[in-house]
Amino acid sequence: MNKVQLFQQIQKKHSYLCVGLDTDLSKIPAHLLGLEDPVFEFNRQIIDATKEYAVAYKPNIAFYEALGPKGWESLAKTLEYIPNDIFTIADAKRGDIGNTSKLYAKAFFETMNFDSITVAPYMGEDSVTPFLEFDGKWVILLAHTSNTGSNDFQLLTDRETGQAFYEKVILKSQKWASSDQLMFVVGATRADKIERIRELAPDNFFLVPGVGAQGGSLEDVSKYGLNKECGLLVNSSRGIIYSSNGEDFAEAANREALKIREDMSIYLDKYM
Amino acid sequence: MNKVQLFQQIQKKHSYLCVGLDTDLSKIPAHLLGLEDPVFEFNRQIIDATKEYAVAYKPNIAFYEALGPKGWESLAKTLEYIPNDIFTIADAKRGDIGNTSKLYAKAFFETMNFDSITVAPYMGEDSVTPFLEFDGKWVILLAHTSNTGSNDFQLLTDRETGQAFYEKVILKSQKWASSDQLMFVVGATRADKIERIRELAPDNFFLVPGVGAQGGSLEDVSKYGLNKECGLLVNSSRGIIYSSNGEDFAEAANREALKIREDMSIYLDKYM
Repeated sequence: MNKVQLFQQIQKKHSYLCVGLDTDLSKIPAHLLGLEDPVFEFNRQIIDATKEYAVAYKPNIAFYEALGPKGWESLAKTLEYIPNDIFTIADAKRGDIGNTSKLYAKAFFETMNFDSITVAPYMGEDSVTPFLEFDGKWVILLAHTSNTGSNDFQLLTDRETGQAFYEKVILKSQKWASSDQLMFVVGATRADKIERIRELAPDNFFLVPGVGAQGGSLEDVSKYGLNKECGLLVNSSRGIIYSSNGEDFAEAANREALKIREDMSIYLDKYM
Repeated sequence: MNKVQLFQQIQKKHSYLCVGLDTDLSKIPAHLLGLEDPVFEFNRQIIDATKEYAVAYKPNIAFYEALGPKGWESLAKTLEYIPNDIFTIADAKRGDIGNTSKLYAKAFFETMNFDSITVAPYMGEDSVTPFLEFDGKWVILLAHTSNTGSNDFQLLTDRETGQAFYEKVILKSQKWASSDQLMFVVGATRADKIERIRELAPDNFFLVPGVGAQGGSLEDVSKYGLNKECGLLVNSSRGIIYSSNGEDFAEAANREALKIREDMSIYLDKYM
């Protein structure tokens, strides 16, 4: 999916909601556990319940990998079930030396058919560029994450330029790819930083986790982050998919997604 | 496996060789391709041919992941086949926020039974510590890697302390775990840096890729990197496993592994 198509989706749905499919057997409703593939069944119903309001789905790969080969099958079925006009993100945070990154790219872009993958920048250019060789596929590079440990290294200040490490990542990586193929992960708990990051990357989409359960404010993120093509995908995982763990989990997810979409619709008018 | 047991292995075999199982269907001998599980069959024969000289095996997970669920089955069978007294490394370069890192840890330490996993440090403490909660399991943290892109970010100098980013990683992470659970990835192409890194982390094991195909010198690595408990696992992948792509691939791998072991045996006497 290209940037124009993504923006069309956003305009059509008045939403920049990404639903995180962090599907955990210990958290899904008990009545699903007897089924042959409870993970897929849960995802299927969540997708049906939220696809009207979601412009992206983001399975965090750890949840599937933890289940062994069966988890990968649930993931593949889930990906196939997501409607084609919705953007898909493999939240895998991969990154390795060149020929190995290429294999990860192959795993997520060819063996599976994700639109994008999250990538860790630590190993530098030749760990990132192999993902960019796939037409129409996106890299979503970790920039400033939403966890407390993000302060350990991402905020170090470079002696030469006075830039923070995460700023170096944002600036340098823009030489490797245009905003048609490169997004950044920017935590919503960093609303104070989003204005600055928008200056550094005016045209790139940001994938923003940390709204809701992790405490970030959707209005702040939107106010400082929206650009002329929206430029935001705001993720909610637990707040939507686990808002009920009874038989009504899908209806509850529908209600939560709608609530967020209503706010987003307002912010699109107000701040974009 | 603990540090004492690892050092015993090294002393018994006069070797600190790690064999990288980067098993690629496009590179393994043609006569294996008709078998039901060519990846496992290749690994099985490589393990049989090298286990006398190898103290560790390191499958790079990308190679298995690229094959989908079948790849994970080949990986699981390979791991089971490796003798219990040989150290196993999941070269996965994972790292995510706390509860998600825990799932990755579960995938590699419980669903599978690896001794260790490589982890990327970008997201900081709470992305690394979940891996440390598993008794007898190791984190091998990326510090200074062997690829050209490693210069992009790892060498940035922190304004406050004058330390390079990779040095910060080495220093800070030692507060999270002792050398009984924490190793570092240090590229062999950085022999000039190994002396410095050994000063920063006198007791930790280093996993050293980049000898051979990537051009690093085993003697330099050994001279500057060996400590009183060896402290090195030097990896060779392509140089051993693809030294022949004929029916004699296992014998060829045996010869290459022996050659490296002979050098290592000399360096252990000379530099340890």
